[in-house]
Amino acid sequence: MNTTIFDFIGDTTGEWKVTLMVALKGESIEPVSHIKRVSSSLILSNEGIWSLKGIVSNLRYTEKEDKEKLLAIQEDLGRPEATLAAFIPIRKSEAWWNLAQDERRKIMENKSQHTQIGMKYLPAIARKLFHSRDIGEPFDFLTWFEYAPADAAAFEDLLAALRKTEEWNYVDREIDIRLIKM
Amino acid sequence: MNTTIFDFIGDTTGEWKVTLMVALKGESIEPVSHIKRVSSSLILSNEGIWSLKGIVSNLRYTEKEDKEKLLAIQEDLGRPEATLAAFIPIRKSEAWWNLAQDERRKIMENKSQHTQIGMKYLPAIARKLFHSRDIGEPFDFLTWFEYAPADAAAFEDLLAALRKTEEWNYVDREIDIRLIKM
Repeated sequence: MNTTIFDFIGDTTGEWKVTLMVALKGESIEPVSHIKRVSSSLILSNEGIWSLKGIVSNLRYTEKEDKEKLLAIQEDLGRPEATLAAFIPIRKSEAWWNLAQDERRKIMENKSQHTQIGMKYLPAIARKLFHSRDIGEPFDFLTWFEYAPADAAAFEDLLAALRKTEEWNYVDREIDIRLIKM
Repeated sequence: MNTTIFDFIGDTTGEWKVTLMVALKGESIEPVSHIKRVSSSLILSNEGIWSLKGIVSNLRYTEKEDKEKLLAIQEDLGRPEATLAAFIPIRKSEAWWNLAQDERRKIMENKSQHTQIGMKYLPAIARKLFHSRDIGEPFDFLTWFEYAPADAAAFEDLLAALRKTEEWNYVDREIDIRLIKM
Protein backbone atom coordinates (compact mmCIF):
# COMPACT_ATOMS: atom_id res chain seq x y z
CA MET A 1 0.00 0.00 0.00
CA ASN A 2 1.09 3.49 -0.84
CA THR A 3 0.42 6.80 0.90
CA THR A 4 0.06 8.82 -2.30
CA ILE A 5 -1.97 6.53 -4.60
CA PHE A 6 -5.68 6.12 -3.88
CA ASP A 7 -8.63 4.30 -5.42
CA PHE A 8 -12.11 5.79 -5.24
CA ILE A 9 -14.40 2.79 -5.47
CA GLY A 10 -18.05 3.21 -6.40
CA ASP A 11 -20.07 0.28 -5.12
CA THR A 12 -23.17 -0.90 -3.22
CA THR A 13 -21.40 -0.52 0.14
CA GLY A 14 -18.70 1.77 1.49
CA GLU A 15 -17.81 4.44 4.04
CA TRP A 16 -19.64 7.25 2.20
CA LYS A 17 -23.26 7.06 1.02
CA VAL A 18 -24.13 8.87 -2.20
CA THR A 19 -26.87 11.50 -1.73
CA LEU A 20 -26.62 13.06 -5.20
CA MET A 21 -24.81 12.20 -8.41
CA VAL A 22 -25.07 14.38 -11.50
CA ALA A 23 -23.00 14.74 -14.69
CA LEU A 24 -22.63 18.51 -15.11
CA LYS A 25 -20.51 18.32 -18.26
CA GLY A 26 -19.70 15.45 -20.59
CA GLU A 27 -20.43 11.78 -20.25
CA SER A 28 -21.91 10.42 -17.01
CA ILE A 29 -20.61 7.47 -15.02
CA GLU A 30 -22.57 4.48 -13.76
CA PRO A 31 -24.68 5.30 -10.69
CA VAL A 32 -23.50 3.84 -7.39
CA SER A 33 -24.94 4.07 -3.88
CA HIS A 34 -21.64 4.23 -1.98
CA ILE A 35 -18.04 5.32 -2.42
CA LYS A 36 -14.95 4.40 -0.47
CA ARG A 37 -11.50 5.95 -0.73
CA VAL A 38 -8.71 3.43 -0.17
CA SER A 39 -4.95 3.57 -0.16
CA SER A 40 -3.86 1.64 -3.25
CA SER A 41 -1.09 0.97 -5.75
CA LEU A 42 -0.64 1.41 -9.49
CA ILE A 43 -2.40 -1.90 -10.08
CA LEU A 44 -5.89 -1.35 -11.49
CA SER A 45 -8.57 -2.20 -8.97
CA ASN A 46 -11.31 -4.62 -9.99
CA GLU A 47 -13.31 -3.79 -6.89
CA GLY A 48 -16.74 -2.23 -6.98
CA ILE A 49 -18.91 -1.09 -9.86
CA TRP A 50 -16.22 1.37 -10.91
CA SER A 51 -12.89 2.49 -9.59
CA LEU A 52 -11.01 5.73 -10.21
CA LYS A 53 -7.34 6.10 -9.36
CA GLY A 54 -5.63 9.34 -8.31
CA ILE A 55 -2.21 10.35 -7.05
CA VAL A 56 -1.31 13.04 -4.52
CA SER A 57 1.45 15.17 -6.04
CA ASN A 58 3.26 18.42 -5.34
CA LEU A 59 1.38 21.70 -5.84
CA ARG A 60 1.76 22.66 -9.48
CA TYR A 61 0.79 26.36 -9.48
CA THR A 62 0.73 27.68 -5.92
CA GLU A 63 3.35 30.33 -5.19
CA LYS A 64 5.40 30.66 -2.00
CA GLU A 65 3.22 33.16 -0.11
CA ASP A 66 -0.01 31.28 -0.81
CA LYS A 67 1.61 27.91 -0.17
CA GLU A 68 2.73 28.99 3.30
CA LYS A 69 -0.75 30.33 4.10
CA LEU A 70 -2.35 27.12 2.84
CA LEU A 71 -0.07 24.88 4.88
CA ALA A 72 -0.72 26.99 7.98
CA ILE A 73 -4.51 26.89 7.88
CA GLN A 74 -5.71 23.90 5.85
CA GLU A 75 -7.10 20.83 7.62
CA ASP A 76 -6.63 17.18 6.72
CA LEU A 77 -9.37 14.88 5.52
CA GLY A 78 -10.97 12.65 8.16
CA ARG A 79 -12.04 15.18 10.82
CA PRO A 80 -14.81 13.49 12.86
CA GLU A 81 -17.18 16.48 12.45
CA ALA A 82 -16.75 16.51 8.65
CA THR A 83 -19.60 14.12 7.88
CA LEU A 84 -20.40 15.57 4.46
CA ALA A 85 -18.23 15.26 1.38
CA ALA A 86 -18.21 15.96 -2.32
CA PHE A 87 -16.30 13.86 -4.84
CA ILE A 88 -15.94 15.75 -8.12
CA PRO A 89 -13.96 14.06 -10.92
CA ILE A 90 -12.95 16.60 -13.57
CA ARG A 91 -11.40 16.53 -17.03
CA LYS A 92 -9.95 19.59 -18.75
CA SER A 93 -9.92 20.12 -22.51
CA GLU A 94 -6.98 19.65 -24.87
CA ALA A 95 -6.95 23.46 -25.24
CA TRP A 96 -6.05 23.71 -21.55
CA TRP A 97 -3.26 21.15 -21.75
CA ASN A 98 -1.82 22.80 -24.84
CA LEU A 99 -1.34 26.05 -22.90
CA ALA A 100 2.14 26.80 -21.52
CA GLN A 101 2.76 26.89 -17.77
CA ASP A 102 2.62 30.71 -17.56
CA GLU A 103 -0.67 30.81 -19.50
CA ARG A 104 -2.28 28.21 -17.22
CA ARG A 105 -0.96 29.97 -14.14
CA LYS A 106 -2.33 33.33 -15.30
CA ILE A 107 -5.76 31.82 -15.80
CA MET A 108 -5.69 30.06 -12.45
CA GLU A 109 -4.23 32.82 -10.33
CA ASN A 110 -4.59 36.28 -11.86
CA LYS A 111 -7.94 35.77 -13.52
CA SER A 112 -9.57 32.87 -11.72
CA GLN A 113 -8.02 33.31 -8.29
CA HIS A 114 -8.38 29.59 -7.81
CA THR A 115 -6.21 29.53 -4.67
CA GLN A 116 -7.74 32.68 -3.14
CA ILE A 117 -11.26 31.29 -3.51
CA GLY A 118 -10.33 28.04 -1.80
CA MET A 119 -8.41 29.87 0.92
CA LYS A 120 -11.47 31.92 1.89
CA TYR A 121 -13.23 28.74 3.01
CA LEU A 122 -10.35 27.28 5.02
CA PRO A 123 -10.18 25.60 7.44
CA ALA A 124 -13.93 24.79 7.30
CA ILE A 125 -13.82 23.06 3.90
CA ALA A 126 -10.97 20.53 3.68
CA ARG A 127 -9.88 19.87 0.09
CA LYS A 128 -7.64 17.32 -1.50
CA LEU A 129 -6.62 17.04 -5.14
CA PHE A 130 -5.70 13.72 -6.73
CA HIS A 131 -4.00 13.66 -10.15
CA SER A 132 -5.21 11.15 -12.75
CA ARG A 133 -4.31 12.55 -16.17
CA ASP A 134 -0.83 11.08 -16.55
CA ILE A 135 -1.85 7.55 -15.59
CA GLY A 136 -4.35 7.00 -18.39
CA GLU A 137 -7.48 7.52 -16.29
CA PRO A 138 -10.75 8.92 -17.75
CA PHE A 139 -10.51 12.09 -15.62
CA ASP A 140 -7.62 14.53 -15.17
CA PHE A 141 -8.32 15.29 -11.51
CA LEU A 142 -10.32 13.77 -8.70
CA THR A 143 -11.27 16.44 -6.17
CA TRP A 144 -12.50 15.60 -2.69
CA PHE A 145 -14.03 18.09 -0.23
CA GLU A 146 -15.03 17.37 3.38
CA TYR A 147 -17.02 19.61 5.71
CA ALA A 148 -19.38 19.67 8.68
CA PRO A 149 -23.14 20.07 8.05
CA ALA A 150 -22.91 23.61 9.49
CA ASP A 151 -20.60 24.53 6.58
CA ALA A 152 -22.78 23.08 3.81
CA ALA A 153 -23.90 26.52 2.60
CA ALA A 154 -20.32 27.80 2.57
CA PHE A 155 -19.36 24.79 0.45
CA GLU A 156 -22.05 25.65 -2.12
CA ASP A 157 -20.67 29.20 -2.26
CA LEU A 158 -17.14 27.90 -2.79
CA LEU A 159 -18.26 25.60 -5.62
CA ALA A 160 -20.33 28.33 -7.28
CA ALA A 161 -17.33 30.71 -7.15
CA LEU A 162 -15.00 28.11 -8.70
CA ARG A 163 -17.45 27.27 -11.46
CA LYS A 164 -17.72 30.94 -12.44
CA THR A 165 -13.99 31.30 -13.04
CA GLU A 166 -12.30 31.48 -16.44
CA GLU A 167 -10.45 28.28 -15.51
CA TRP A 168 -13.76 26.39 -15.44
CA ASN A 169 -14.35 27.13 -19.13
CA TYR A 170 -11.66 24.55 -19.79
CA VAL A 171 -13.46 21.82 -17.84
CA ASP A 172 -15.08 19.50 -20.38
CA ARG A 173 -16.22 16.69 -18.08
CA GLU A 174 -17.44 17.11 -14.52
CA ILE A 175 -19.38 14.73 -12.29
CA ASP A 176 -20.72 16.12 -9.01
CA ILE A 177 -21.18 13.44 -6.36
CA ARG A 178 -22.34 14.38 -2.86
CA LEU A 179 -21.78 12.08 0.08
CA ILE A 180 -22.66 11.55 3.70
CA LYS A 181 -20.52 9.53 6.10
CA MET A 182 -22.09 6.25 7.21
CA MET B 1 -0.08 -0.52 -24.45
CA ASN B 2 0.01 3.18 -23.79
CA THR B 3 1.71 6.03 -25.66
CA THR B 4 2.71 7.95 -22.53
CA ILE B 5 3.90 5.24 -20.13
CA PHE B 6 7.28 3.62 -20.78
CA ASP B 7 9.49 1.01 -19.13
CA PHE B 8 13.25 1.29 -19.35
CA ILE B 9 14.47 -2.27 -18.96
CA GLY B 10 18.06 -3.01 -18.01
CA ASP B 11 19.05 -6.50 -19.15
CA THR B 12 21.57 -8.69 -20.94
CA THR B 13 20.02 -7.90 -24.33
CA GLY B 14 18.21 -4.91 -25.81
CA GLU B 15 18.23 -2.22 -28.49
CA TRP B 16 20.84 -0.08 -26.74
CA LYS B 17 24.22 -1.38 -25.53
CA VAL B 18 25.64 0.19 -22.36
CA THR B 19 29.07 1.77 -22.90
CA LEU B 20 29.36 3.48 -19.50
CA MET B 21 27.37 3.40 -16.29
CA VAL B 22 28.32 5.50 -13.29
CA ALA B 23 26.50 6.64 -10.15
CA LEU B 24 27.37 10.34 -9.89
CA LYS B 25 25.30 10.98 -6.76
CA GLY B 26 23.61 8.64 -4.31
CA GLU B 27 23.09 4.91 -4.50
CA SER B 28 24.08 2.99 -7.65
CA ILE B 29 21.87 0.55 -9.54
CA GLU B 30 22.79 -2.96 -10.65
CA PRO B 31 25.03 -3.00 -13.72
CA VAL B 32 23.44 -4.15 -16.98
CA SER B 33 24.86 -4.55 -20.47
CA HIS B 34 21.79 -3.41 -22.42
CA ILE B 35 18.73 -1.18 -22.06
CA LYS B 36 15.50 -1.15 -24.01
CA ARG B 37 12.74 1.45 -23.85
CA VAL B 38 9.28 -0.07 -24.34
CA SER B 39 5.76 1.29 -24.38
CA SER B 40 4.10 -0.06 -21.26
CA SER B 41 1.28 0.31 -18.76
CA LEU B 42 1.01 1.03 -15.05
CA ILE B 43 1.61 -2.65 -14.29
CA LEU B 44 5.09 -3.19 -12.88
CA SER B 45 7.35 -4.97 -15.32
CA ASN B 46 9.18 -8.11 -14.17
CA GLU B 47 11.31 -8.10 -17.27
CA GLY B 48 15.06 -7.71 -17.22
CA ILE B 49 17.51 -7.21 -14.37
CA TRP B 50 15.74 -3.97 -13.44
CA SER B 51 12.97 -1.89 -14.85
CA LEU B 52 12.24 1.81 -14.38
CA LYS B 53 8.87 3.29 -15.29
CA GLY B 54 8.29 6.86 -16.51
CA ILE B 55 5.37 8.87 -17.83
CA VAL B 56 5.37 11.59 -20.49
CA SER B 57 3.44 14.56 -19.10
CA ASN B 58 2.76 18.19 -19.94
CA LEU B 59 5.61 20.71 -19.56
CA ARG B 60 5.58 21.89 -15.95
CA TYR B 61 7.69 25.09 -16.10
CA THR B 62 8.14 26.15 -19.72
CA GLU B 63 6.51 29.46 -20.59
CA LYS B 64 4.68 30.30 -23.82
CA GLU B 65 7.54 31.89 -25.79
CA ASP B 66 9.98 29.09 -24.98
CA LYS B 67 7.36 26.39 -25.49
CA GLU B 68 6.67 27.62 -29.02
CA LYS B 69 10.37 27.74 -29.83
CA LEU B 70 10.86 24.25 -28.41
CA LEU B 71 7.98 22.78 -30.40
CA ALA B 72 9.28 24.41 -33.58
CA ILE B 73 12.82 23.10 -33.41
CA GLN B 74 12.99 19.98 -31.25
CA GLU B 75 13.33 16.56 -32.86
CA ASP B 76 11.72 13.30 -31.82
CA LEU B 77 13.57 10.31 -30.50
CA GLY B 78 14.35 7.57 -33.01
CA ARG B 79 16.20 9.50 -35.75
CA PRO B 80 18.28 6.92 -37.69
CA GLU B 81 21.47 9.00 -37.40
CA ALA B 82 21.09 9.33 -33.60
CA THR B 83 23.02 6.18 -32.70
CA LEU B 84 24.26 7.46 -29.34
CA ALA B 85 22.11 7.98 -26.27
CA ALA B 86 22.33 8.82 -22.60
CA PHE B 87 19.84 7.56 -20.02
CA ILE B 88 20.12 9.60 -16.82
CA PRO B 89 17.72 8.76 -13.98
CA ILE B 90 17.57 11.60 -11.46
CA ARG B 91 16.10 12.18 -8.01
CA LYS B 92 15.73 15.60 -6.45
CA SER B 93 15.87 16.27 -2.70
CA GLU B 94 12.93 16.89 -0.37
CA ALA B 95 14.14 20.51 -0.16
CA TRP B 96 13.36 20.87 -3.88
CA TRP B 97 9.90 19.36 -3.61
CA ASN B 98 9.08 21.53 -0.60
CA LEU B 99 9.66 24.67 -2.68
CA ALA B 100 6.61 26.45 -4.12
CA GLN B 101 6.03 26.56 -7.89
CA ASP B 102 7.40 30.11 -8.25
CA GLU B 103 10.56 29.25 -6.29
CA ARG B 104 11.21 26.17 -8.43
CA ARG B 105 10.51 28.12 -11.59
CA LYS B 106 12.92 30.90 -10.59
CA ILE B 107 15.68 28.40 -9.96
CA MET B 108 15.01 26.61 -13.26
CA GLU B 109 14.53 29.59 -15.51
CA ASN B 110 16.00 32.81 -14.11
CA LYS B 111 19.01 31.32 -12.40
CA SER B 112 19.61 27.99 -14.05
CA GLN B 113 18.25 28.75 -17.51
CA HIS B 114 17.40 25.09 -17.84
CA THR B 115 15.31 25.61 -20.99
CA GLN B 116 17.78 28.02 -22.61
CA ILE B 117 20.68 25.60 -22.14
CA GLY B 118 18.74 22.75 -23.72
CA MET B 119 17.51 24.97 -26.55
CA LYS B 120 21.08 25.88 -27.57
CA TYR B 121 21.71 22.26 -28.53
CA LEU B 122 18.50 21.73 -30.50
CA PRO B 123 17.77 20.09 -32.85
CA ALA B 124 21.08 18.14 -32.63
CA ILE B 125 20.43 16.68 -29.16
CA ALA B 126 16.93 15.21 -28.87
CA ARG B 127 15.68 15.11 -25.26
CA LYS B 128 12.73 13.48 -23.61
CA LEU B 129 11.69 13.70 -19.98
CA PHE B 130 9.76 10.91 -18.25
CA HIS B 131 8.14 11.56 -14.85
CA SER B 132 8.49 8.91 -12.15
CA ARG B 133 8.10 10.66 -8.79
CA ASP B 134 4.34 10.42 -8.39
CA ILE B 135 4.17 6.71 -9.20
CA GLY B 136 6.35 5.48 -6.33
CA GLU B 137 9.48 4.90 -8.42
CA PRO B 138 13.02 5.21 -6.99
CA PHE B 139 13.82 8.20 -9.25
CA ASP B 140 11.86 11.43 -9.84
CA PHE B 141 12.76 11.75 -13.52
CA LEU B 142 14.16 9.56 -16.26
CA THR B 143 15.92 11.67 -18.87
CA TRP B 144 16.81 10.33 -22.28
CA PHE B 145 19.04 12.08 -24.83
CA GLU B 146 19.75 10.93 -28.40
CA TYR B 147 22.35 12.31 -30.79
CA ALA B 148 24.58 11.49 -33.71
CA PRO B 149 28.29 10.68 -33.06
CA ALA B 150 29.19 14.03 -34.63
CA ASP B 151 27.32 15.77 -31.82
CA ALA B 152 28.93 13.83 -28.97
CA ALA B 153 31.11 16.76 -27.90
CA ALA B 154 28.12 19.12 -27.94
CA PHE B 155 26.26 16.69 -25.72
CA GLU B 156 29.08 16.74 -23.16
CA ASP B 157 28.92 20.55 -23.19
CA LEU B 158 25.14 20.47 -22.63
CA LEU B 159 25.47 18.07 -19.73
CA ALA B 160 28.32 20.05 -18.14
CA ALA B 161 26.24 23.26 -18.40
CA LEU B 162 23.19 21.61 -16.78
CA ARG B 163 25.28 20.14 -13.96
CA LYS B 164 26.72 23.57 -13.13
CA THR B 165 23.29 25.15 -12.60
CA GLU B 166 21.76 26.01 -9.23
CA GLU B 167 18.97 23.51 -10.04
CA TRP B 168 21.50 20.66 -9.99
CA ASN B 169 22.31 21.35 -6.32
CA TYR B 170 18.92 19.80 -5.59
CA VAL B 171 19.76 16.54 -7.41
CA ASP B 172 20.56 13.94 -4.75
CA ARG B 173 20.71 10.81 -6.91
CA GLU B 174 21.99 10.65 -10.48
CA ILE B 175 23.07 7.69 -12.58
CA ASP B 176 24.76 8.45 -15.89
CA ILE B 177 24.32 5.65 -18.44
CA ARG B 178 25.74 6.00 -21.96
CA LEU B 179 24.44 3.88 -24.79
CA ILE B 180 25.09 2.94 -28.39
CA LYS B 181 22.40 1.62 -30.71
CA MET B 182 22.82 -2.03 -31.68
